[in-house]
Amino acid sequence: MRTVWLNGEFIPETEAKLPIFDRALLFGQGVYEVSPVLDGHFCNWPHHAARLERSKVSTRITDDTDWPAVLAELIARNSLTEGRVYLQITGGAPADRDFLSPVGGTEPNRFAFTQEAALVDNPVASRGIRVMLRPEGRWAIRSAKTTQLLYAVLAKEAARDAGVDDAWFVEDGLVTEQTSANAHIIDARGVLVSHPVDHGVLPGVTRICTLEIARAMGLTVEERPFTPEELFAAREAFVSAAGSLVLPVVEVDGKPIGNGGPGTITAEIRSRYIALLRAG
Amino acid sequence: MRTVWLNGEFIPETEAKLPIFDRALLFGQGVYEVSPVLDGHFCNWPHHAARLERSKVSTRITDDTDWPAVLAELIARNSLTEGRVYLQITGGAPADRDFLSPVGGTEPNRFAFTQEAALVDNPVASRGIRVMLRPEGRWAIRSAKTTQLLYAVLAKEAARDAGVDDAWFVEDGLVTEQTSANAHIIDARGVLVSHPVDHGVLPGVTRICTLEIARAMGLTVEERPFTPEELFAAREAFVSAAGSLVLPVVEVDGKPIGNGGPGTITAEIRSRYIALLRAG
Repeated sequence: MRTVWLNGEFIPETEAKLPIFDRALLFGQGVYEVSPVLDGHFCNWPHHAARLERSKVSTRITDDTDWPAVLAELIARNSLTEGRVYLQITGGAPADRDFLSPVGGTEPNRFAFTQEAALVDNPVASRGIRVMLRPEGRWAIRSAKTTQLLYAVLAKEAARDAGVDDAWFVEDGLVTEQTSANAHIIDARGVLVSHPVDHGVLPGVTRICTLEIARAMGLTVEERPFTPEELFAAREAFVSAAGSLVLPVVEVDGKPIGNGGPGTITAEIRSRYIALLRAG
Repeated sequence: MRTVWLNGEFIPETEAKLPIFDRALLFGQGVYEVSPVLDGHFCNWPHHAARLERSKVSTRITDDTDWPAVLAELIARNSLTEGRVYLQITGGAPADRDFLSPVGGTEPNRFAFTQEAALVDNPVASRGIRVMLRPEGRWAIRSAKTTQLLYAVLAKEAARDAGVDDAWFVEDGLVTEQTSANAHIIDARGVLVSHPVDHGVLPGVTRICTLEIARAMGLTVEERPFTPEELFAAREAFVSAAGSLVLPVVEVDGKPIGNGGPGTITAEIRSRYIALLRAG
């Protein structure tokens, strides 16, 4: 059984509960982060911390938890060597339900847990994923990492129903991102094209590292949205996310991308990213 | 201390908690209903039940709770004569976090609680509310009553910051609704104009009753979106919601609606609606 962390205490996972009046339960007022764990260490914390601060401001949540200390202890107590660590801060649980938070604020609820996962030896990395396109229907503040995730859940489940792995969202004729990962292409010219960081997509931590690696490899990087037509004409497509690192996309709406196999540039970016994480 | 209901048990409100792995906490996968309570009875249940069924389908939540029995007992145990009763059904708490629900589903978590409130003798009904216009930014499936409510929370808090009572959303040049109530006008011709029921707005139970009453009063009702310009030129504006019944809107973005006081047609609709609820 996992040990999880809740409001300052390390406790068995089955005992970790929040009041039904918590604003994350009643209004979806929660912000979170997921960091990859490799060799027993959580990675990229400065990037995650910076985004968490921005998410808190966007959602009017306050918190001063010493997260690096909590996450390190949680990983140690669970003897986690590879996987993820998840943390959430909620809007807290006032005495009663009201859209308006109490003036003066409410103490947030905070929790964190680990997940074992094979990030490096992931068979999906050599097989690639198949995705479908879906209309974008999430809320407007996608730049904050919040628990407003039901549209992404429903899209992932629609993808499963359709026999594919995931869904990419399209808004006003432009691809935004995958349900829970940033979306990128190596276009017909060999240029890496990636949606810019604005309210339309999550400013992914893995995305930052991915683009840095691509530039270091000598690739031209264009931060602009791309169309489904550019996607279908691309040499490669891939996604980046903290929980799965970098994964190739080999098929979109039943059509192969490039030669229909995982792209070589994608594989090189993935390999360099894993080396970077391991180097700490 | 209130008695609340959680998964079949009537328990003190401070003891009602859900696992941190509940999908309502992690993904905002929860559907809910709020019914008005007058004279110790909850009202309009058939309409609420019908909407709850649709919300469950939209969000892939299943549940077969005998809600009328639960709500009646909860009201009795709390000796509630006037206010609201709230119920929520969540996506359940699987053993671990994954966007995808377990194949075969997960047992939902279900809870309900009462709130005392003066619905009839509400001073706001004679004073009216002042609202501001805000860009629509909620998710696409607003026809389902879900806990994807953070945008509405932030808009209500922005309204409070601005010294007004609430916010009306505008999308593509058309008013959708208030943060947590349907929005209506009596336009310059004396016609009641109300956004049609589609994915853009919540299909309000109070809205159904309100439009029936208006038609019975001999008013022409047009179910179509209206523009901010029509709103500013309207004779009256009002909102409808289960938790507050019918309330007049007297000012929008600092400009008076009609003569700047609560409208007479609005007052008549409110009065007839309360009589209808009392008649059971």
